[in-house]
Amino acid sequence: MTTAKLDVIGIGNAIVDVISQSDNAFLAAQAMDKGAMMLIDEPRAEAIYGAMGPGIEASGGSAGNTVAGVASLGGKAGYIGKVRNDVLGKVYRHDITAAGVAFPTPAAETGPATARCLILVTPDAQRTMNTFLGACVGLGPHDVDADFIASAQVTYMEGYLYDPPLAQEAFRKAAEIAHAAGRKVALSLSDSFCVHRHRQAFLDFIEGHVDVLFANEAELTALFETEDFDKAAAAIRRLTELAAVTRGAEGSVVITRDQIIEVPAAAVARVVDTTGAGDLYAAGFLYGLTRNLPLAECGRIGSIAAAEIISHYGARPETPLAALIQA
Amino acid sequence: MTTAKLDVIGIGNAIVDVISQSDNAFLAAQAMDKGAMMLIDEPRAEAIYGAMGPGIEASGGSAGNTVAGVASLGGKAGYIGKVRNDVLGKVYRHDITAAGVAFPTPAAETGPATARCLILVTPDAQRTMNTFLGACVGLGPHDVDADFIASAQVTYMEGYLYDPPLAQEAFRKAAEIAHAAGRKVALSLSDSFCVHRHRQAFLDFIEGHVDVLFANEAELTALFETEDFDKAAAAIRRLTELAAVTRGAEGSVVITRDQIIEVPAAAVARVVDTTGAGDLYAAGFLYGLTRNLPLAECGRIGSIAAAEIISHYGARPETPLAALIQA
Repeated sequence: MTTAKLDVIGIGNAIVDVISQSDNAFLAAQAMDKGAMMLIDEPRAEAIYGAMGPGIEASGGSAGNTVAGVASLGGKAGYIGKVRNDVLGKVYRHDITAAGVAFPTPAAETGPATARCLILVTPDAQRTMNTFLGACVGLGPHDVDADFIASAQVTYMEGYLYDPPLAQEAFRKAAEIAHAAGRKVALSLSDSFCVHRHRQAFLDFIEGHVDVLFANEAELTALFETEDFDKAAAAIRRLTELAAVTRGAEGSVVITRDQIIEVPAAAVARVVDTTGAGDLYAAGFLYGLTRNLPLAECGRIGSIAAAEIISHYGARPETPLAALIQA
Repeated sequence: MTTAKLDVIGIGNAIVDVISQSDNAFLAAQAMDKGAMMLIDEPRAEAIYGAMGPGIEASGGSAGNTVAGVASLGGKAGYIGKVRNDVLGKVYRHDITAAGVAFPTPAAETGPATARCLILVTPDAQRTMNTFLGACVGLGPHDVDADFIASAQVTYMEGYLYDPPLAQEAFRKAAEIAHAAGRKVALSLSDSFCVHRHRQAFLDFIEGHVDVLFANEAELTALFETEDFDKAAAAIRRLTELAAVTRGAEGSVVITRDQIIEVPAAAVARVVDTTGAGDLYAAGFLYGLTRNLPLAECGRIGSIAAAEIISHYGARPETPLAALIQA
């Protein structure tokens, strides 16, 4: 096995976020599930956009946020995801490459527009997401380059990719390439509703292919259809050698075959917008893991990265994370 | 004179900001004047965008920020400015109308794209702006509707509008309509380099048409080609009945024919990005003025609005300003 050129490659839905402040009444009027990610079509996206408040646009996408976080920590990162060759697609490519992430996937030249996620942030800092997948549905196995995947220590995939039809094949192809090259495969469960949509597919994929699983409590318990976290924790350690489970303000829990490590959350002066908290936790954790740091330290770096992202609007770091973990 | 339906109408360049963190070395390498606004063409915009870091996109434009601020304070506001019927133009229209501002100007259906301003924010929170005017060059007298202008207590114009060729005519037309309807005309000098470009035109316009002038120290002293603030203050009170001059962390000075009122700056926990500070000061000041509040109180509201905007990236309020001035 050769030395890896990259630390982490992310595969995900390439999405531009449109972030707006909102309130519970708006979510109720729009029949949105608070805290969830809902898939919407373009007419619905237009209707929500017309009704919501002023926004800011920022590149997002779960795995995209994670690899931008890895780069901000000083790691070497790459990304696979599909944009259209339109204005927002250009913004997406600019932002992720300017963050230092290699992004070889060509833009689609026909078909739907670059994906958008309309994010409503409530005063409690919760985010509710409405995603028009657009060009993301074009991502498929042909976008997974074997040499690129083999060049990274870890290939990280977001569970949201189970929604567009071709991406599951891209997933499996990438996992097989990574393992054949002696690399690791990581998966984020992304969202409890997403877990409900694809539960059996996730279980099969985790058992066969996943070395490192990221989830929050709700996603992990949804995966095993239990309300009991301890049962879910016991179940996941039978399927995968390493799982990192975030618990919001309570921090996170790292679960291996033979131990459970509790990691506290990092302090935040004011929680503004929780968008990207899980993505950045994964960034910090994987940064530590690819440097062979102890698991508690991986979790600590994850907590610091998550704390930065929830202190402002948007899911990409505003402060270079490398400076924060040294402090 | 009928009761005004609107408090403030802004006329300005309708611009989408692309905000990125940067450093002094980047500004030097790109030969940018720190703190200034430079006009650039589309190829230069592409070159800077390619070189700069990841960004966030947010509606901006000086007068657009001001009227969004007036609306956030609870005032009634309108806007005249020119976008193209493209993706960013749609974003601009969404954001300003979702803020509660009436925006009747139709989008251009041909010609250059919606304007963009590439804003580099340095760690000292200073912003350096590079503006591709795009569709703004199409704004002209035909976009100034007499009934609309006559419906507002104050028509507020940004000095930046002296850069696109047709807008000066729009300016004069709007001022004449406003005065014929018994309304007031306000002008912001916008930028000291802009003052150097259009000094005589500004002097002529102020003397003939401006009731309320907004400037910062550098702009006011540039207008009178002096280094001496007191001399500039004496000169401006001969030209206009009311001037509000911002002095950064030192607050502002309100100058009338017979008095000078010093207004302290409002406290800010951490200054992040000074983009929009002057625009929001004007918003607060005009909000007070259109409610016939004492000038010191107008300045105080301006200071509070400015303090909110410099505490985060972007030049549109994140916190409803009405709540802040009541606190």
